[in-house]
Amino acid sequence: MFEFEIVKEDKKTRARAGILHTPHGDIETPIFMPVGTRATVKALTPEQVEEAGAQIILANTYHLYLRPGNGLVKKAGGLHSFMNWNKPILTDSGGFQVFSLDGLRKITEEGVEFKSHIDGSLHVFTPENVMQIEEDLGADIIMALDECAASDKPYEYVRPSMYRTMRWAERCKKAKKREDQALFGIVQGGVFEDLRIESSKIIDDMDFPGNAIGGLSVGEEKPVMYRMLDVIEPYLSRHKPRYLMGVGSPDCLIEAAGRGVDMLDCVLQTRTARMGTALTRHGKMNMHNKKFEEDMSPLDDQCQCYACRHFSRAYIRHLVCVGEILGATLLSIHNITFSLDLMKTMRQSIIDGNYSEFREEYLSMMGYEPVEMTY
Amino acid sequence: MFEFEIVKEDKKTRARAGILHTPHGDIETPIFMPVGTRATVKALTPEQVEEAGAQIILANTYHLYLRPGNGLVKKAGGLHSFMNWNKPILTDSGGFQVFSLDGLRKITEEGVEFKSHIDGSLHVFTPENVMQIEEDLGADIIMALDECAASDKPYEYVRPSMYRTMRWAERCKKAKKREDQALFGIVQGGVFEDLRIESSKIIDDMDFPGNAIGGLSVGEEKPVMYRMLDVIEPYLSRHKPRYLMGVGSPDCLIEAAGRGVDMLDCVLQTRTARMGTALTRHGKMNMHNKKFEEDMSPLDDQCQCYACRHFSRAYIRHLVCVGEILGATLLSIHNITFSLDLMKTMRQSIIDGNYSEFREEYLSMMGYEPVEMTY
Repeated sequence: MFEFEIVKEDKKTRARAGILHTPHGDIETPIFMPVGTRATVKALTPEQVEEAGAQIILANTYHLYLRPGNGLVKKAGGLHSFMNWNKPILTDSGGFQVFSLDGLRKITEEGVEFKSHIDGSLHVFTPENVMQIEEDLGADIIMALDECAASDKPYEYVRPSMYRTMRWAERCKKAKKREDQALFGIVQGGVFEDLRIESSKIIDDMDFPGNAIGGLSVGEEKPVMYRMLDVIEPYLSRHKPRYLMGVGSPDCLIEAAGRGVDMLDCVLQTRTARMGTALTRHGKMNMHNKKFEEDMSPLDDQCQCYACRHFSRAYIRHLVCVGEILGATLLSIHNITFSLDLMKTMRQSIIDGNYSEFREEYLSMMGYEPVEMTY
Repeated sequence: MFEFEIVKEDKKTRARAGILHTPHGDIETPIFMPVGTRATVKALTPEQVEEAGAQIILANTYHLYLRPGNGLVKKAGGLHSFMNWNKPILTDSGGFQVFSLDGLRKITEEGVEFKSHIDGSLHVFTPENVMQIEEDLGADIIMALDECAASDKPYEYVRPSMYRTMRWAERCKKAKKREDQALFGIVQGGVFEDLRIESSKIIDDMDFPGNAIGGLSVGEEKPVMYRMLDVIEPYLSRHKPRYLMGVGSPDCLIEAAGRGVDMLDCVLQTRTARMGTALTRHGKMNMHNKKFEEDMSPLDDQCQCYACRHFSRAYIRHLVCVGEILGATLLSIHNITFSLDLMKTMRQSIIDGNYSEFREEYLSMMGYEPVEMTY
């Protein structure tokens, strides 16, 4: 039911093009996954998300567990049916959100106790009940419960935390019951190479159908994150998909793929859209800027998204300046389409054997220097 | 270019079914016009507005004059092109908005001086410059500048105000230049029958291609509004479309059509949607209500809109309760579709000769008593 097929491996880097088969369809990797935190990709209908080219979306277990509750989603026939999205879905484990609730949580070997950010009520996530919740939600790919340690935590904190996360991964594997969901383990270890390597070995040994890399892009510098990817790549089975969690700015999409990452997700595309920002081949555009006031050209003249086919920068600036919802909708459509087009072009460059050239050209067009791969 | 064709007149009431031809297409009357105040029907793409069945939308001159400015809209090729809406558009004159700015405006024979609600800057609307602004905006149907007196104003205030509005209408007619726009005059006169009749005679004499009725649904009871419609109907040429401004709750749509009204607009459909309310054949539904928590049926099982085809009440309740934009979008799609379907069914009942039966049944289904027609 889950199979990962590698179509092409790049010769100069660790980039690869693949196809991940799931019960709700195939995903062409490397892929960017738009985020639908509360069972909706913000400001968009599922129709618009599909038209933007999304092959898989992510939803957040923490948020859905609190509201509307995994029990209700199960009653509705699972997330696909509840939100009317018939392609693949991935749910995270809630770990990241819970561990962001600083001061509102308590970690033990058993799991993590936390207070709801909504009403302060007390809850517990354990590997076992998180598996139950994710099975109720019914995504195609589900994630093991992990602790995502902040990037400023010292070695003495991160080491035992990582080992506990490894034990939790094992418990998740045992607790999981549904056959039509793929459980991915998560590599942790902060910014410490030895811990990252150790964690990768342990996770890879557990033989999940896919391996995720968590706890990056949480405050550390980008080169540090890239270094971690470089260091662990040899320890994660090549024939399994690798998912870098919560990372997805355009430069990161390119840099991570070159380091062997197959799947990424990020709220940046939709969050910046709601703040009035467009992602383009030439970098970010803040649509509040007065220079777009009379600009009758589309956001990006090479983009074929609904927003670029029909509306001018001047119109979108107007919407953004007066605070109309349609501004957020059009920019979300554009930013997701732009990111997925970038993935598609990158994937083709891998297949065509010129990913390195693509990487250099595209990064430089966006105003980024490529970061040296250090393996 | 503008022609109003009457397809059928009801025998028992003053309802009629017609077709209004405009440069951007035909409108089947009686029609409800969704409101796109700032060149966007709130929370919807023009594609979604069209799919909801809209044949014409309204935009507000006051808002567009202030932001982004009529000059910019003109540069963009007019509203149709600016907002990517290729069907008919109607712009109001800004009168209603300006006269809602209590304390921020000063009326003279020349026009009205007002302070922007955005930055307090000083502006003047005269019949002449409003015609210029509406010509820049480029709608198919444009409205004369009028004073919309509050419903609690005494006769001594309303009488001279109405006569001034009549003189402004005359000046608008003289100032208007574009041949591809139809200018409608506006009947005023508050809740005073003699003033309403006098105003109707004057407006009708000016021979506009359409006549509007303004200053109703501004605080008076509904039977008072219906009475005004009953009283003036004989004075407004039957072969011209009649537009009742700013009125559009489902019961009003039905009652007004029976009194010879052909066009209506209202923000209720989209405003209540953003507050979480669905309009249905059985009245309003507040989707925050806990009783919808596990309700897997659509908003309205006879509605064929995108929201009703794909989503449950439980899902929409979830969106509304957590404040997701998609909740506003789905409810806006539904409320507009519902209102336009109502118009379509009503129009067919006029053609089939059973409008009166339709009126009684539909009003009673929604929980309303029909209000006696008093002509």
